[in-house]
Amino acid sequence: MIPIVSIIGKSNSGKTTLIEKIIPELTRRGYRVATIKHDVHGFDIDEEGKDSWRHRKAGADAVILSSPKQIALVRTVDRDLTIAELRDRFIDDVDIIITEGFKKDIQPKIEVFRKEMHRELLTSKDDDVVAVVSNQPFDMAVPCLDLDDVNGVVDVIEKNFLHHKNENDMTLMVDGKAVPLTPFIKTLIMQTVRGMVSTLKGCQNPKSVKITMGHKSKR
Amino acid sequence: MIPIVSIIGKSNSGKTTLIEKIIPELTRRGYRVATIKHDVHGFDIDEEGKDSWRHRKAGADAVILSSPKQIALVRTVDRDLTIAELRDRFIDDVDIIITEGFKKDIQPKIEVFRKEMHRELLTSKDDDVVAVVSNQPFDMAVPCLDLDDVNGVVDVIEKNFLHHKNENDMTLMVDGKAVPLTPFIKTLIMQTVRGMVSTLKGCQNPKSVKITMGHKSKR
Repeated sequence: MIPIVSIIGKSNSGKTTLIEKIIPELTRRGYRVATIKHDVHGFDIDEEGKDSWRHRKAGADAVILSSPKQIALVRTVDRDLTIAELRDRFIDDVDIIITEGFKKDIQPKIEVFRKEMHRELLTSKDDDVVAVVSNQPFDMAVPCLDLDDVNGVVDVIEKNFLHHKNENDMTLMVDGKAVPLTPFIKTLIMQTVRGMVSTLKGCQNPKSVKITMGHKSKR
Repeated sequence: MIPIVSIIGKSNSGKTTLIEKIIPELTRRGYRVATIKHDVHGFDIDEEGKDSWRHRKAGADAVILSSPKQIALVRTVDRDLTIAELRDRFIDDVDIIITEGFKKDIQPKIEVFRKEMHRELLTSKDDDVVAVVSNQPFDMAVPCLDLDDVNGVVDVIEKNFLHHKNENDMTLMVDGKAVPLTPFIKTLIMQTVRGMVSTLKGCQNPKSVKITMGHKSKR
């Protein structure tokens, strides 16, 4: 399962700027990165009059534009999806997901802080914060790194999320919803699927497996 | 597996216009629709300066914008993906996929023709064409419907792709690639997975199942 870390912080604390700095360092170290940005106000990404816009206007729930270099997908949802749902439905083939915002989601977090902008941290000690990145030192149980210490931040991300954590996990979605599983059931399903798949030609040692069966029928 | 039909035709034959007419009729009949448009020239969907644009510029392979009403995903690819790959990676929770273009893809097709624009059909009889929609009659083995006969076109789509065709199929992706399966192996895997899943609470009679294990590691 692709690991997730959320960059959170109060407004204007420098979340996007930090993300802009850590992505190139992660890619330099050989990782593929996806980002997710939460936008409570909604957004307008389609351009009026374009074919894709016409498809959506006519009532398509999902519209994909496909070209040799990039894919764009716009799709209707009926509520805010969690980061894990977004990952499981739309993201594959990357090593880590960095999110901006989503402070209420359950994923582990790094908080950005600038003393010129705010007086107190956003997170409390109960949150799953793995580091604070700040231009003011905090006395905390987790590492507190300088705003300019991009290498240090990426070291923290690598240590917490990218070392040997990703090969033994799975997600099961039934009728569009994630099913919570005990470790025993998870292992049972994984071993069974891995066993079946590994008997197939060219699939002896699969790193990732995705099985899709049936689909939701008429609403 | 979600069925696919490609609306093809020479330039200016009215592909987008036909799609604009059939989507509302499909949704009126209770189906959810996704569309895929092939754009050989590429496109520019990100807006310069926006946070999502900054994430991509910094090197993110995939960027998602998430809001309570819609999700937008832009992701880098290294080649044109097939319609089936686009479906398996990015689309769930719809009943049918209508594509515009993709005349070289192997999916079944409906050709749009307008006599004012062209003299000959694009498709030959070897292509998997299920109908022609035209303002000029053609003597063919497949139905030839009038350009204004939206109900007739949707009847053809419903008959060919939406009646009892979708519940017994599956896709297996290993390390990011679809694995071809014989009907026997397909049934074996489906029954095994369905058997395991149906023992879980709330999953007695799953319509759709998606299992994701591991992920591609460092490139």
